[in-house]
Amino acid sequence: MSDTLPELRDGESQLEFDPLERVDAELRFIGRIHTPWQRGDCPKNVTRARESGQGASITLEPGFAEGLTGLSVGDGILLFYWMHQARRDLITQRPRHKPEAQGTFALRSPNRPNPISLAAVRITSLDLAAGRIGIDAIDCFDGTPLLDIKPSAPAVDVPPVQP
Amino acid sequence: MSDTLPELRDGESQLEFDPLERVDAELRFIGRIHTPWQRGDCPKNVTRARESGQGASITLEPGFAEGLTGLSVGDGILLFYWMHQARRDLITQRPRHKPEAQGTFALRSPNRPNPISLAAVRITSLDLAAGRIGIDAIDCFDGTPLLDIKPSAPAVDVPPVQP
Repeated sequence: MSDTLPELRDGESQLEFDPLERVDAELRFIGRIHTPWQRGDCPKNVTRARESGQGASITLEPGFAEGLTGLSVGDGILLFYWMHQARRDLITQRPRHKPEAQGTFALRSPNRPNPISLAAVRITSLDLAAGRIGIDAIDCFDGTPLLDIKPSAPAVDVPPVQP
Repeated sequence: MSDTLPELRDGESQLEFDPLERVDAELRFIGRIHTPWQRGDCPKNVTRARESGQGASITLEPGFAEGLTGLSVGDGILLFYWMHQARRDLITQRPRHKPEAQGTFALRSPNRPNPISLAAVRITSLDLAAGRIGIDAIDCFDGTPLLDIKPSAPAVDVPPVQP
């Protein structure tokens, strides 16, 4: 991995192999997310981003806009996006606010073997012809690559109540 | 795309280009999902899968199990998995139960430019040493490749209420 990555904190550990020693599937970015945020001023999570009152927007690449047909202003959507600045080799991590390291799959950290992030947002404006969507708020850097948009389905996107 | 793909239905349309004419990022499968389902008997959605009473399980590939540290039986998790049998060129689709075609991004269909699926499930058993997780239910084929596991966070995984 890159020489410019930060040092590991106490309790953090790396995979003993490069997860991309084997490539199993390939992604195409379908657009970009435009936000007010850069490294250094990005809200820590989407709740903070919502509290900031700052909206954001998405532009799709040519050809993909037709895929928005059927969505409307006010709809809830899920955005799947690519954390292209994340490291993929951390298997335990210690967030600054936690005393002990935890497994990557027990954390929402952007650093993970496949750095796909998820955000649930609401559509505030929609230009189908231009492939441009306004959204209420999101906590990612300006220019983050977009992978997918799905309609939100709260009844299934939350785990079932325990029996 | 493959010659064996089904015919398009009325109103369905394809991208005018192969979305993989440009590859922007690469994925590594971290494990597999084991289910009772094959093509032909798979529940239509996770609600039906839950109603079936049939559980499922995940096995992680060697090296990734340490990433489960901090998860427990009873926890809600989000699974990100790869629909390796999906087609990636459909930009409008007409589900069997709908009268008109809709954009791919307005549907939860597995067919999409980046065929990443999401399921919210609950952990029913956990073998950290073996990298094996039991889950309550899921609506995917046996052997589906797994991309990521995140802890569920219902407060942020559902869009905010409209102002």
